[in-house]
Amino acid sequence: MTVDLIIYGGFVVTMEGRGTGIIPDGAVAIQGNTIAAVGSTAEIMGQYSAHRTIDAKNKAVLPGLVDTHIHTSNAIVRGCSQDINKWMYSGILPLLSLAKTEDLTAGSMLNIIEAVKKGTTTFCDYDFPMLELIENHVRVGTRVVAAEMINELPTVTYGVQDTQLRDFDPAKGERQLRDAKTLVERYHQSHGGRITCMMGPQASEMCSVELLREVKACADKHDLDIHMHVAQSDRETRQVMERYGKRPVELLEELGYLTPRLHAAHITETSEAEQRLLARRGVSMALCTGSIGIINGELPPAEAYLSYGGRVGLGTDQAPGNNCNNLFNEMKFTAILHKYKHNDPTVFPAWKVLRMATIEAAESMGIAEQVGSLRPGKKADVILMDLHSPAMSPVLSGPVRNIVPNIVYSASGSEVETVIIDGRVVVENYVLQTVDEVQEIAAANKAAERICQRLRDTGWERELPLAQWTKEGLY
Amino acid sequence: MTVDLIIYGGFVVTMEGRGTGIIPDGAVAIQGNTIAAVGSTAEIMGQYSAHRTIDAKNKAVLPGLVDTHIHTSNAIVRGCSQDINKWMYSGILPLLSLAKTEDLTAGSMLNIIEAVKKGTTTFCDYDFPMLELIENHVRVGTRVVAAEMINELPTVTYGVQDTQLRDFDPAKGERQLRDAKTLVERYHQSHGGRITCMMGPQASEMCSVELLREVKACADKHDLDIHMHVAQSDRETRQVMERYGKRPVELLEELGYLTPRLHAAHITETSEAEQRLLARRGVSMALCTGSIGIINGELPPAEAYLSYGGRVGLGTDQAPGNNCNNLFNEMKFTAILHKYKHNDPTVFPAWKVLRMATIEAAESMGIAEQVGSLRPGKKADVILMDLHSPAMSPVLSGPVRNIVPNIVYSASGSEVETVIIDGRVVVENYVLQTVDEVQEIAAANKAAERICQRLRDTGWERELPLAQWTKEGLY
Repeated sequence: MTVDLIIYGGFVVTMEGRGTGIIPDGAVAIQGNTIAAVGSTAEIMGQYSAHRTIDAKNKAVLPGLVDTHIHTSNAIVRGCSQDINKWMYSGILPLLSLAKTEDLTAGSMLNIIEAVKKGTTTFCDYDFPMLELIENHVRVGTRVVAAEMINELPTVTYGVQDTQLRDFDPAKGERQLRDAKTLVERYHQSHGGRITCMMGPQASEMCSVELLREVKACADKHDLDIHMHVAQSDRETRQVMERYGKRPVELLEELGYLTPRLHAAHITETSEAEQRLLARRGVSMALCTGSIGIINGELPPAEAYLSYGGRVGLGTDQAPGNNCNNLFNEMKFTAILHKYKHNDPTVFPAWKVLRMATIEAAESMGIAEQVGSLRPGKKADVILMDLHSPAMSPVLSGPVRNIVPNIVYSASGSEVETVIIDGRVVVENYVLQTVDEVQEIAAANKAAERICQRLRDTGWERELPLAQWTKEGLY
Repeated sequence: MTVDLIIYGGFVVTMEGRGTGIIPDGAVAIQGNTIAAVGSTAEIMGQYSAHRTIDAKNKAVLPGLVDTHIHTSNAIVRGCSQDINKWMYSGILPLLSLAKTEDLTAGSMLNIIEAVKKGTTTFCDYDFPMLELIENHVRVGTRVVAAEMINELPTVTYGVQDTQLRDFDPAKGERQLRDAKTLVERYHQSHGGRITCMMGPQASEMCSVELLREVKACADKHDLDIHMHVAQSDRETRQVMERYGKRPVELLEELGYLTPRLHAAHITETSEAEQRLLARRGVSMALCTGSIGIINGELPPAEAYLSYGGRVGLGTDQAPGNNCNNLFNEMKFTAILHKYKHNDPTVFPAWKVLRMATIEAAESMGIAEQVGSLRPGKKADVILMDLHSPAMSPVLSGPVRNIVPNIVYSASGSEVETVIIDGRVVVENYVLQTVDEVQEIAAANKAAERICQRLRDTGWERELPLAQWTKEGLY
């Protein structure tokens, strides 16, 4: 049989089975946007011929990485909100409030370029205004599970205190819900299934109960999952307690949110009982180790959640306090922070965290039938990494094999040479094929200049700690 | 005046002063192997002309990074010793014992290539057999503070228990001391000062008291500093206690080792009183966050040590349990592990960890008159990073400046475009200029194949956890 593409002769890290499922001299056959076969080079080359072949000698061949929680637009203020205590109100929000839609779109494109070149093929992009941002994914050719992030609070600019309980703005909530519905109508299951949608209320303290009910009804009606920040901060807990006399998880339970179709980011501020309840209900957890470590100095309860039977996938969150959207970074951070937490080098071994960026990430988002491992019938999302790049060498191929440990602990992502999404070669020989990277990055830099100018115009910088430190020559 | 080279128009991160000392539109003039001037582009271009200029528009210009503790040869068994409890005896040592000198030399070259391309210009290379390895630094053009690592224990192969107290092998100790002296005679202050030497006893439990005395006498005679693992493990403490009835720090104090000329790696197993004593004596600390985090699940007491007035620099240690020699990685790990430890996002801010990889690293090794910041009269070790690479964009140039946070939290090292060491362009447009990278990496891979074959021949893999996991499909 003749297929479109065969990748052969590589270390094929299938991520099938309980570990990493490596086939040492392996091959992957691709027909259209689908994996036709995976096996040894001898098997595949015996059974198939191809219009195009890629020699993967000295390469690792992996499923594309799955980022379970990312706000792509935030990259427009990358690096502007870390080393401080009040990340949200003294860092990211005042700056983001100065970004217009065109700036956010430019930031999103930058972020997608960054991540796809580092091997991310599926973006669970949870952001605003998604109706605009999603066109970046269309253009680059990335796989996206998109959610319009719905927030019913008045837009935050400068000077809001995190303790303040504010009135909701129902008109804003309705507008955003309408946009979310439009997104679903226009994009859900579009582009041959490469683009799908979820509903995306921002958090339990950021939407009224009425709006949360409407969102849930819409998800049920359209058979959609929900992507949502859950118990992400003491602010959320405090505000929900003050408003309703109950904690966020209890509120969401009452509203019928706690089902396997809820994908909960962070769950940092949960009790053991709440974690057990969430796991029992089948809610999945997005673990954003870099982001939460840098902005809060905390490690979300991933190990406990796994031990209660919960599903966990890795996410990069946002760039103004991570500061990169690079799943190789998340794998490293996740392993080392857990080893340190437990004073035990055996916890969160390399094979486990690689699973959390691939197959277990896909399982956590309910998309493991499509992506997350190299298996016939799944979508052809495949990355190739150069094992002869300095940080990946030497290759010890046995009896001790060092490829997976080096992918997790040594790789920086710059070893990703080829990225195939939905059967299409999106990155080849380290070069993005689908958009003009230089031009898009220049556009993001122009947008950042406009934001800097607006910041000067407002005079807010007098109160921003990072502006103060810039003045002092620390930054 | 005409100089050899001017780098102009970049964000010059001088690392002078108490922070990062950025000059936004800055320039660096280089004459021979020395920095002639640093200032604004207008100033420098007004005062100097040059044989060669480099336009650093949209680049960050930094002093080359200083790695205060690295065993370059160990890269030959990269990725073969993590996620296990007994790192030394069940992981690295059995494999290293199968490496011959030519393999170690190939591993060292691989490691130097990896690190220099990620911006490391000064290597405090503490390894064995340094008399062979050092020629790699001669060839690549890296700056090295070399120490022949002296170990008087019988060579460890397979099956040694970490609890075993073994007889010293004085003949081996004398041989290694002789090699160390030869190294000093041949290389100290050679190549225009680019290569210098220290004495390097491996640890207080690995050399007899007699040998430690001889090493110290040799250091005094030749006016040399000492690079040494100090209180690196409970094994060291236990064995020194058993042998002498005292703890390592007490032993070293008696032997006169505790002076500002002792550069102590790790000091993980020290009491507060010992840390205070070490700091008071002026001993410096090498903090290898990635290595100790991955192999021990621990974070050495850097913050305490700094608070007692101690000097601390970052190091990458070794690749079979880090697994990379990339100071960008160390900066990130150092920041996030401390933030998590203290549940405080404000500790170890970006500017501080960047200092610990540059000027404070140089101060800790006693070489700050030569390197670690961009200042007239210092050696011309300079790196350029592309701020228009995806992970470094966008640039917000003020009133909030994000360049230093992004260097620390976002960069992976692959953004390093140009590396100048001792006035010579060693890496240009991401390509190593001095040795053939492809050929050297192929040689390291060949060496690794030989080690794998020897491992099969020994049959040791039956007892190595990593071989077991490879068999099970985890690795």
